[in-house]
Amino acid sequence: MWMRIGIIGSGNVGRTIADGALRAGHDVRLGARMPEKPELRDWLEQASEAASLSEIEGAAEFGELLVNATTGDGSLEALREAGEENLDGKALLDIANAGTSNEHGFELTYVNDDSLAERIQSEFPDLRVVKALNTMHREVMAAPEKVPGDHTVFICGNDDEAKSQVRELLGDFRWKDENVIDLGDLTAARALEMFVPLWVRLYSALDGQLFNIAVVRA
Amino acid sequence: MWMRIGIIGSGNVGRTIADGALRAGHDVRLGARMPEKPELRDWLEQASEAASLSEIEGAAEFGELLVNATTGDGSLEALREAGEENLDGKALLDIANAGTSNEHGFELTYVNDDSLAERIQSEFPDLRVVKALNTMHREVMAAPEKVPGDHTVFICGNDDEAKSQVRELLGDFRWKDENVIDLGDLTAARALEMFVPLWVRLYSALDGQLFNIAVVRA
Repeated sequence: MWMRIGIIGSGNVGRTIADGALRAGHDVRLGARMPEKPELRDWLEQASEAASLSEIEGAAEFGELLVNATTGDGSLEALREAGEENLDGKALLDIANAGTSNEHGFELTYVNDDSLAERIQSEFPDLRVVKALNTMHREVMAAPEKVPGDHTVFICGNDDEAKSQVRELLGDFRWKDENVIDLGDLTAARALEMFVPLWVRLYSALDGQLFNIAVVRA
Repeated sequence: MWMRIGIIGSGNVGRTIADGALRAGHDVRLGARMPEKPELRDWLEQASEAASLSEIEGAAEFGELLVNATTGDGSLEALREAGEENLDGKALLDIANAGTSNEHGFELTYVNDDSLAERIQSEFPDLRVVKALNTMHREVMAAPEKVPGDHTVFICGNDDEAKSQVRELLGDFRWKDENVIDLGDLTAARALEMFVPLWVRLYSALDGQLFNIAVVRA
């Protein structure tokens, strides 16, 4: 199903998701703090006609489905900038991780009884937040075939319809349905975000080689 | 290589590791707070002649390689009970996770810039702590073939010789060497312990089905 997708955040992750959604035939607007940046102009030039570029507010207004691709510690501010009237009732795929890299890995801003996704949900109660894709390298998010064989993407959220919309987008990215694991409500975002320190240590142990994790069942 | 293994903690995890080590031909002493418990007497009766049972102190004294299979929040106390003179210079395989289960999953006692393994290492500086096996169901720890195909066990620690000893034990448990991923020094235990909330959510989402995660590489 064709959708208008508004992406909040124009860094590497945002552009990767934008390219993936464009390949799948969707209309995409990338929302940036400074859309006039040369690298974003360049991105727009090489992208298909279904791509557009605007400030964050414009992307939020444009999208039927929104994607949070900002850095985690800037997510709440970026969503405020998007304007509550542009968010209400929409599904938001939250890919962000809040925290800081250091010599030992990654320290999270929210842990245990809280998560970035839940912070977003609680500040914007009419947004329907779905957490997914935050557990892997951006190159794998919209192109799972870059890692061979079966591997896993997790999804969670409080709203089933919003989860279905995100699952559909994952399907567009060529994630096989059997490799999508639904962990339940949005409190599972705690677990998905707390996986990130392991991801960072693995990335370092594997010398930057592309990988993902697979849940292998008996 | 034949070893004397002392297991601190006689719950399900401790007995599973004991049985695995016995199958591999090692001498094993299980250390319990109350070795007179009927279920432990029963365990001893069905175990091979290479098995013995004692208080925690006796198991620590017996072992050349020690295993921490206590509940995480009781680990430091159990190790104090073991007696510093019985720990000094030995490798300790730490399998424990400190925290509390709740309706949303699992809340860790140590996060971000600390871990149970590092707490143990810092209270017992002459112990050579290696973290491994804490990321999976106990049934898979000493019997990886219970989950089909390739899947992963992580290992970390500050002492290479101690890591080699643990890797050897993993080999005895029939973990293929290529499925053991060394994440580096003991600060990686933060990441391994912070994975546990995801494990708990997965266990619930998969309805208790046995599973493990595999790191799949490009």
